[in-house]
Amino acid sequence: MQKAISIFSFTALAFLASCTSCPLGHKTTAKGKVEHVVLIWLKNPGDAKDRAAVIAAGKKFQREIPQVEHLSVGTPLASERPVVDDSFDVGLVMRFANAADLAIYEKHPVHVQAVNDVLKPAAKKLLVYDVVTE
Amino acid sequence: MQKAISIFSFTALAFLASCTSCPLGHKTTAKGKVEHVVLIWLKNPGDAKDRAAVIAAGKKFQREIPQVEHLSVGTPLASERPVVDDSFDVGLVMRFANAADLAIYEKHPVHVQAVNDVLKPAAKKLLVYDVVTE
Repeated sequence: MQKAISIFSFTALAFLASCTSCPLGHKTTAKGKVEHVVLIWLKNPGDAKDRAAVIAAGKKFQREIPQVEHLSVGTPLASERPVVDDSFDVGLVMRFANAADLAIYEKHPVHVQAVNDVLKPAAKKLLVYDVVTE
Repeated sequence: MQKAISIFSFTALAFLASCTSCPLGHKTTAKGKVEHVVLIWLKNPGDAKDRAAVIAAGKKFQREIPQVEHLSVGTPLASERPVVDDSFDVGLVMRFANAADLAIYEKHPVHVQAVNDVLKPAAKKLLVYDVVTE
């Protein structure tokens, strides 16, 4: 039993060490990863159904495409600051281990299908920023 | 001893449960958080020293401003895709628990000082997208 607990503790520690956002000081993404930021403007700005469909597509990517390490997806926080652009409908931030994994994601059938079935019909503009972490 | 191990295991589990990006299925940011995406274009595009100074400022925010839950900071991944804008110099993605914490960060002395001492002298353009996660 004690051995089992030790193995469990070791496994738990190994998991913790692999985290980049756990409350153990690892709050900065490790060097060399790619943050893939996608801003989407809908043909029908503010349309709740289309926003929900795009958000659901993002969550499907995270569930079904193993290269997606982390996902944040949502809608704009309204702002009066001139440097803030809150005109988009849906924003996604997806983390990949490296540029090669981002390329695999882009060609993944789940991604390609959602681009054709959800994004292209609903979106009028798409803007992407890819950040390689330091 | 066994009790100590049990307490350790419980503590480790508690830490894991609080993670949003650990390899236990918690790979999507919880609802209601704010991803603060900042793109910076320098007056001297591509200048290594200015890029490093802005990146260092971002890392200082993460270390010294408790409201910053998570930080990714880096430089653009070059791309030929027309939807990708790789013209910026430094990109930051910072996570906050909510809009109130983002507001506290914006007024924090460490942030205000870096805006005046590092960002304003070096940057010609700044663009912000704030995403409230769903």
